[in-house]
Amino acid sequence: TAVLSSSKSKLLFCSDMMIESVHFNLEFITPRELGHKALAVCFSDLVAMNGRGLAATVSLALPIREDFSKESFVEEFYEGLGALAKQLEIDCVGGDLSFSPNSIFIDVACVGESSNPKLRSGASPGDWVAVSGTPGASAAGLYDLQRSQQTTLSLRQQHLTPLPRIDLLPVLTHATALIDISDGLASELHHIAKASKVGFEIDAARIPLHPDAVKLAPERALDWALHGGEDYELLMTGAPETPCPLRFTVIGRVTEGPEVVITDLNGAKRLLEPRGYDHFGR
Amino acid sequence: TAVLSSSKSKLLFCSDMMIESVHFNLEFITPRELGHKALAVCFSDLVAMNGRGLAATVSLALPIREDFSKESFVEEFYEGLGALAKQLEIDCVGGDLSFSPNSIFIDVACVGESSNPKLRSGASPGDWVAVSGTPGASAAGLYDLQRSQQTTLSLRQQHLTPLPRIDLLPVLTHATALIDISDGLASELHHIAKASKVGFEIDAARIPLHPDAVKLAPERALDWALHGGEDYELLMTGAPETPCPLRFTVIGRVTEGPEVVITDLNGAKRLLEPRGYDHFGR
Repeated sequence: TAVLSSSKSKLLFCSDMMIESVHFNLEFITPRELGHKALAVCFSDLVAMNGRGLAATVSLALPIREDFSKESFVEEFYEGLGALAKQLEIDCVGGDLSFSPNSIFIDVACVGESSNPKLRSGASPGDWVAVSGTPGASAAGLYDLQRSQQTTLSLRQQHLTPLPRIDLLPVLTHATALIDISDGLASELHHIAKASKVGFEIDAARIPLHPDAVKLAPERALDWALHGGEDYELLMTGAPETPCPLRFTVIGRVTEGPEVVITDLNGAKRLLEPRGYDHFGR
Repeated sequence: TAVLSSSKSKLLFCSDMMIESVHFNLEFITPRELGHKALAVCFSDLVAMNGRGLAATVSLALPIREDFSKESFVEEFYEGLGALAKQLEIDCVGGDLSFSPNSIFIDVACVGESSNPKLRSGASPGDWVAVSGTPGASAAGLYDLQRSQQTTLSLRQQHLTPLPRIDLLPVLTHATALIDISDGLASELHHIAKASKVGFEIDAARIPLHPDAVKLAPERALDWALHGGEDYELLMTGAPETPCPLRFTVIGRVTEGPEVVITDLNGAKRLLEPRGYDHFGR
């Protein structure tokens, strides 16, 4: 994502790929959901800079295969993408459709603007750090899809059709650093730590977990929250004198660093590694 | 490509994919040339709207394979892309690097601006139509690469490292319609005809062919010019009272249409089909 100089407000520009067998598998997601998700993933980067969307381009490359019809795939994909675009008030201004030799490739680019763009580099020691929503819900949803499908629809929807948190834009004004947690809470804390030259002390007990994720696999729920990724929730830091906004949960504080330390549920402190999750077991 | 409303000038936004075995083959192009070409192809869309570049994002997905090292591929790809970005004065503001299961997948998105954006929809009956450069040079270069490699470097460079025609930006002010000929002259004439609700009368004898292409395969040179594509030259129309600018060659005129008619080298008139060229014989 980039901030480009413009007149009144700053221009934002970002792109995100989704590749079959790497980021998704047609066994678990429909073309319509895929169209929704491809736009959501990219648009979330705009929200994570406190930006609004202007336009998106979509590049889609499809193989000729027996497991789907190209025509209906394209139609359903654009229906899903178009419905979300309408909701997000962003114009889909074209893009590219091509043949692919093997796998499905999707790349969405978004242009947006912000009068007050937020970066990951503004956190200071003493700031609180807070997260929106319930991190780990997407990973729990995928786990459920790959296995039992016994849980509520809510987890699966978090994974298949996540909604960029445009509803939070009004409360981001005082964020000192901002990022979305698409790579997982642990990785994103490290991203802010590196860019802001700080560290973190995180309290595992304060991380808000989705009740259905806890029910589904109590021993995995915290790991999903820390390392699962694909949540498209926001992680923000704020100065001590600024109250943490509604719909965010404080999970710790910014330190001199550079370590990212977590106090586990049993009270033991350990270094929090920035590792992600390999959902498709490659 | 899209025109977005901005303050002083209009914002332009476009994206272009390049997929292995569909758009290129590593047998004939180096990673450095590929980086150059991926940006050139997308940037050309900005020039074809009379725009200047602001920023580009690059999405690159690479498989793990024995025929190249991932690290050196990435390094060389970005060297080629970076060198052209510098020349075009556009910022590469990041993007995405991912694993791909099989083929190499590249998608470049560009944002630009124009105080006087040109569309394909402004041509009127009576306008002249003109093309820059020597269409067909890229197709001739690929033919040469796939076969003898006996010709001059010039044709191969047209195919491997095309240069978007930013040098022509100063003379595009009075274009009534403008497009690049990436899909081939015939297809692009049809694009303007459709968008402007006009037709064309083209004189084959006036189409400027590259002397090396004529030398390489005299019987193919006109076909390459009409259907070869990947030339990144500009096709423009202009009002009769406006002189055709230097470095453009008038090849015919705009008619009421809707047919696109060409007078062949033997003087016979025929309908010019919008078909492209299948270079990799799929």
